[in-house]
Amino acid sequence: MSNDILLRALARQPTEYTPVWLMRQAGRYLPEYNATRAKAGSFLALAKSPALAAEVALQPLERYPLDAAILFSDILTVPDAMGLGLFFTEGEGPRFERPLREEAAILRLGAPDPAAELRYVLDAVRETRRALNGRVPLIGFSGSPYTLACYMVEGSGSDDWRALKGMLYARPDLLHRILAVNARAVADYLNAQIDAGAQAVMLFDTWGGNLTAAGYEEFSLAYMRKVISELRDVPCIVFTKGAGAWLEAIAASGCAAVGLDWTVDPASARSRIGAKVALQGNLDPAVLVAPPDIVRAQARRVLDAFGPAPGHIFNLGHGISPHARVDAVAALVDEVRAYSMRMRKARV
Amino acid sequence: MSNDILLRALARQPTEYTPVWLMRQAGRYLPEYNATRAKAGSFLALAKSPALAAEVALQPLERYPLDAAILFSDILTVPDAMGLGLFFTEGEGPRFERPLREEAAILRLGAPDPAAELRYVLDAVRETRRALNGRVPLIGFSGSPYTLACYMVEGSGSDDWRALKGMLYARPDLLHRILAVNARAVADYLNAQIDAGAQAVMLFDTWGGNLTAAGYEEFSLAYMRKVISELRDVPCIVFTKGAGAWLEAIAASGCAAVGLDWTVDPASARSRIGAKVALQGNLDPAVLVAPPDIVRAQARRVLDAFGPAPGHIFNLGHGISPHARVDAVAALVDEVRAYSMRMRKARV
Repeated sequence: MSNDILLRALARQPTEYTPVWLMRQAGRYLPEYNATRAKAGSFLALAKSPALAAEVALQPLERYPLDAAILFSDILTVPDAMGLGLFFTEGEGPRFERPLREEAAILRLGAPDPAAELRYVLDAVRETRRALNGRVPLIGFSGSPYTLACYMVEGSGSDDWRALKGMLYARPDLLHRILAVNARAVADYLNAQIDAGAQAVMLFDTWGGNLTAAGYEEFSLAYMRKVISELRDVPCIVFTKGAGAWLEAIAASGCAAVGLDWTVDPASARSRIGAKVALQGNLDPAVLVAPPDIVRAQARRVLDAFGPAPGHIFNLGHGISPHARVDAVAALVDEVRAYSMRMRKARV
Repeated sequence: MSNDILLRALARQPTEYTPVWLMRQAGRYLPEYNATRAKAGSFLALAKSPALAAEVALQPLERYPLDAAILFSDILTVPDAMGLGLFFTEGEGPRFERPLREEAAILRLGAPDPAAELRYVLDAVRETRRALNGRVPLIGFSGSPYTLACYMVEGSGSDDWRALKGMLYARPDLLHRILAVNARAVADYLNAQIDAGAQAVMLFDTWGGNLTAAGYEEFSLAYMRKVISELRDVPCIVFTKGAGAWLEAIAASGCAAVGLDWTVDPASARSRIGAKVALQGNLDPAVLVAPPDIVRAQARRVLDAFGPAPGHIFNLGHGISPHARVDAVAALVDEVRAYSMRMRKARV
């Protein structure tokens, strides 16, 4: 591989500079992404076409010297393959045609066979690896068992997750049944991505932060630990939004790296977690609506807060906004590389 | 006062049981509230009528043996009095007709005189105190300077607070100017509520959790500290949603109590903060969609997590949902009193 700096940082080895990639880096802030999406007809058609998914996965790398590519897909492919009927309506988040509310449907739920039912994702992994041709590593991903369950039970995103929480409190046995199936399915799915060529994987636990501390352990982290314990040997990054209070527990999950949202103070995260895992993050994504010179200053603040020790992967604290400025992203990627190189030299 | 247990708990004195009140306890889950609101014509008309505001403030106390009343009002009355034009559209959150985006408008911004421009709120405080007739203490409140600024700049609630964050990063001087005016206005407003009869006050920092750790100190907490330092001598409760990582700093703000959202583990909050302030919280509001026996079990879990030491005020971890069951609320209030009394006896 011509650039394996991401993998070295995930292993907490010294690197010449801090690797950088951006969650949702192939996204609507890029005009070329919007053009390909228009050609595909919809987000889901784009995600389900291996050739077009590979095309958009490489678009941000053509513009910016990023240190990783990420599979272009959706976090909800697994429940879609379970038959829940994923769809998107313009301007809204994901929805399911058949949310899981009835006990009988929950007892029928089974983990899909990725080779059969999620083949388009594995083909996208293979196509993207081929197109990358060793330039940078490819990261595969899935929604976490709990985050999948949130959408599966609620049927859509929610402010209060009422249906999900109703089940969690009144029928925790049913939710645990869903989570057990999801954990099996996510482990199989990520292993299939790894077999197809993913060199690192990430669990997106977008909604784990809607739980209590005890609930996070019981309903989210326990199932992520199970997934991680079954993964073939590639590094796994765990990102739970809103998990600032639970970082020590996440770091002990078996993951290689903990993703930090932008509300977490990196220095305090590092002192709480210690050096046993890498940290990924955590620029406020809203910075990218500001002019380039402001972006550079904020990027330096984040790098300073993490410090020059090995084991930092620069990223945003959440997915990039459709309103991010392309010149702001260019300034960010450039500044991370230049300033992190200077930090290392100053240290010698 | 016939029941001053809230004030004693805020002062961390021993109490016979744990006092309980619920954020937004006069709300849409109560049929009698909906009837009064229909009579008023709209939420804002209700909030602006001192007689009807007092009526709805007392409604939850007629149903449940709660240990405090809270002023019925909105967190955004102050910017409304500044001329921004608060309005509500059905099913949406609050909006402002004239969001603050232009430098000239920001430089013209001034703190309103509560006695003149927020008289309806002070009248509601007086009416509610009269109607309470010493039953329980009355809590006054305001949005925090930062949370007010979020709505003032954005013009409405937001998923990404793009306009606000754009100003924060590109023109922090303008945001600081708004925050300084807001801090002056909120201090004057809360002091006027205290003069009118509020026996405790609360700062609702609903959106402080959208900041970075450093940003929270600079843009939110610093201004809440300023407000608290100017308050006449009644206890102040500070609630920032999503502030689990910053509790020590909030506890050092001069407040009497820190409000905890439901994601915070109470035992770990207490060990981090120590005994110098009271803690308020923190049942997941979603529990109240479950049947009463489940609610009782979850209430006991929260009480056990806080333990029997003085200085706990039971509350939800966020405002009560319109979908809360009235029988679930009854079970909650009953269980908190009964179980917390038993906890104290078991301790002796």
